[in-house]
Amino acid sequence: MTPDEFRKAGHLLIDWIADYHANVGDRPVLSQVQPGEVRDRLAANPPAAPEPFDAVLSDLDGPVMDGLTHWQSPNFFAFFPANTTFSSILGDLVSSGLGVNGFSWATSPAVTEVETLVLDWMVELLGLPEHFVGNGVIQDSASSSTLCAILAARTRATALGALPAQLVAYCTAQAHSSIEKGLRIAGIGADQIRVVDHDEAFAMRPDALRRAIESDVAAGLTPFFVCANAGSTSSEAFDPVVDLAPICAASGAWLHVDGAMCGVAALAPELRWVNDGLDLADSYTTNGHKWMGVGFDCSFFWVRDRGPLIEALSIQPAYLRTAQAQSGAVIDYRDWQVPLGRRFRALKAWFVLRLDGVDAIADMIGRHIEWATEVESWVRADDRFELLAPRSMNLVCIAHRAGDEATEALVEAINASGAAQVTPTVLDGRKAMRICVGSHHTERHHVVALWELVSSLA
Amino acid sequence: MTPDEFRKAGHLLIDWIADYHANVGDRPVLSQVQPGEVRDRLAANPPAAPEPFDAVLSDLDGPVMDGLTHWQSPNFFAFFPANTTFSSILGDLVSSGLGVNGFSWATSPAVTEVETLVLDWMVELLGLPEHFVGNGVIQDSASSSTLCAILAARTRATALGALPAQLVAYCTAQAHSSIEKGLRIAGIGADQIRVVDHDEAFAMRPDALRRAIESDVAAGLTPFFVCANAGSTSSEAFDPVVDLAPICAASGAWLHVDGAMCGVAALAPELRWVNDGLDLADSYTTNGHKWMGVGFDCSFFWVRDRGPLIEALSIQPAYLRTAQAQSGAVIDYRDWQVPLGRRFRALKAWFVLRLDGVDAIADMIGRHIEWATEVESWVRADDRFELLAPRSMNLVCIAHRAGDEATEALVEAINASGAAQVTPTVLDGRKAMRICVGSHHTERHHVVALWELVSSLA
Repeated sequence: MTPDEFRKAGHLLIDWIADYHANVGDRPVLSQVQPGEVRDRLAANPPAAPEPFDAVLSDLDGPVMDGLTHWQSPNFFAFFPANTTFSSILGDLVSSGLGVNGFSWATSPAVTEVETLVLDWMVELLGLPEHFVGNGVIQDSASSSTLCAILAARTRATALGALPAQLVAYCTAQAHSSIEKGLRIAGIGADQIRVVDHDEAFAMRPDALRRAIESDVAAGLTPFFVCANAGSTSSEAFDPVVDLAPICAASGAWLHVDGAMCGVAALAPELRWVNDGLDLADSYTTNGHKWMGVGFDCSFFWVRDRGPLIEALSIQPAYLRTAQAQSGAVIDYRDWQVPLGRRFRALKAWFVLRLDGVDAIADMIGRHIEWATEVESWVRADDRFELLAPRSMNLVCIAHRAGDEATEALVEAINASGAAQVTPTVLDGRKAMRICVGSHHTERHHVVALWELVSSLA
Repeated sequence: MTPDEFRKAGHLLIDWIADYHANVGDRPVLSQVQPGEVRDRLAANPPAAPEPFDAVLSDLDGPVMDGLTHWQSPNFFAFFPANTTFSSILGDLVSSGLGVNGFSWATSPAVTEVETLVLDWMVELLGLPEHFVGNGVIQDSASSSTLCAILAARTRATALGALPAQLVAYCTAQAHSSIEKGLRIAGIGADQIRVVDHDEAFAMRPDALRRAIESDVAAGLTPFFVCANAGSTSSEAFDPVVDLAPICAASGAWLHVDGAMCGVAALAPELRWVNDGLDLADSYTTNGHKWMGVGFDCSFFWVRDRGPLIEALSIQPAYLRTAQAQSGAVIDYRDWQVPLGRRFRALKAWFVLRLDGVDAIADMIGRHIEWATEVESWVRADDRFELLAPRSMNLVCIAHRAGDEATEALVEAINASGAAQVTPTVLDGRKAMRICVGSHHTERHHVVALWELVSSLA
């Protein structure tokens, strides 16, 4: 592709993306294709000669578009939002265009320094503890943040003499699947994980954690890792970090707080309570790539002490050593993550914070919570439904009073309609429908339309 | 940012990127900034109100640009290439713009189906074994591919009754640092890794592998993982996969082949020998984001049998697995990787293969090898230098005959000049300078100029 062809196709794609965002609400949210259908409509073999750009664009507009579930749709109430704002798209475009690799400071100092700067900005904007300043890194996902926390915790515990087979981790049944996955990757088996009781709000019971830890210590085991939810996946439950932290500290266990979805709500000063207890945590993660509008992948991760993290992840072959890192003057982020290579991911977050500004994000978060509160009131006013969990923020979990089958059928009917998308979950054994109000393109009328749909299909 | 502001800034950035690539050869390759210098020139605190786009652009053109090491420079002979072509940038722009998340088939079928299609195209284009068809996945990096291979191998071995503490892994001292890192993450300690002897070409000695395995088996240990280099990082050494494979098979160890850099050379039919023995491997990785021109991150990873990989990484208990996913009707790629979320990364590879075509990449690879062969001949003709490793492809490893200090000083002088960048390494205890000819913007005159610089500074 020549530079001129790039300019022409690039301008066209910028407009194509603007048009996509303008009209995405008109498309069926959940893709309606059958398995194999997208592929069957595409060339089975690579072309013998370069193709014109129009041929690729035609495939994008046809089979690819039909095979997308539209995460940017204003009618997307599924999972958690994964907002991708215009500012973020531009920041990521610059990252793709520069094609630099910032695995160590020296391989592009700006990649590292802008990243640390953006993370320090986030400490200020979220009101996080001062000791997180300079100790942040961008991971691809909260799953990877959690894995890194587990590896740092394992390193700290084994350095004190614990054997890997003696280590025990703690979370509730509401913890994200990435906790179990990260532990498994780290070689911590299912028999080394304690599922701690939760209360009626799906929050961890501190007394249950204390008892579980005491029991394990008495058995000669080593509590090494506790994961607290600051907004769980199923129902946005908040574990009482303030009460859990002293128990973790007394036992020597690493306290990781998973605020993947809800942590950025602290951009709104009145929602700073989501951070309660973080000053006592060993590590914390929240995603830029959900509510905040920084496109996937951008997960913010902080540690109180970078020592165990680097100890867990640093490997120093000759071809990667640099004088600056040996002296400790700079950060080599390759030692703060699983992969070696790294994109200039901080750009997209920096673009969002500078071009959109934090007030716009905070205002949007406030509106979403207001509309979720309205949904909650509609549920309460309708005899056919019940709430299965307290609403803490922008997520409402409801069940059909006719039972699990009715709830399940309702979720399927909504998604099959293409008019909106929601996600099913299970809460204490009961099927639930999650309505998550979080798309940056959602307006109040979309929420009203969703409720009309729910009501008509129920 | 409004849609109109996005269109305007987007068009501007497309042109900015085209200009950057046109002129990147005029910039000092290695950033000349001091630690902290980039950050000191940027706003220390987030803005109170949204900023105009021009303010961000001004920072990009100033402090950020000064703080970049220019991986796309035609004078970049360091590490391995990390080419980012115009086609790839556009494919990635579409991915950023759509903002879909393809962690399971249903969350956007096209993300999964285009990815599998592209990986099957690569099997065809590289001449890989037929059993890799349908068994490929895009990882962010070869480090992650290797970690996934290790986890699959660990799962297979422990399912047969081995205890984690009994597992032993094998590689040479030339193996990439990600092997040791991946093993450490998986809980396989340094005492469970055998560094197998290599020959004068830095290739693993099959007899040494056999003896090491026999010794461990006799000690009651379980050989579970062997990593073979198909183009090592320090010198592009090729381990004899054909000879290693029967030894691995006899012991039950998983054979992973790391072709991160050189594997895509098989796009040129005369270089298909890089794949020798792959039909006997359990897994294989090569990076789209190096020589091939797909922007980071895009590492292709294939397994012979997807079973152990999914078993290792699936977050769902067995009773929740869908018949469709198990039967192969659909793939849920979240179970083939460490993170949960995933971008539409296949687009950039698909764009490159369709818009640039494989012949252009193969021709470029051929030119690079030709020029590296010229460099080799210049080294042989110059009494001041010696080759420290055989040249297999596009990488020449040389030393100054005056000794390690002279070699080290030469590397530093070249990099400090800004006119070119090379990387130091250590080969069997001796300091070496790596000259890797691999940038898509490099022409023969850049290589000639590099050698004139080397010669004048030596």
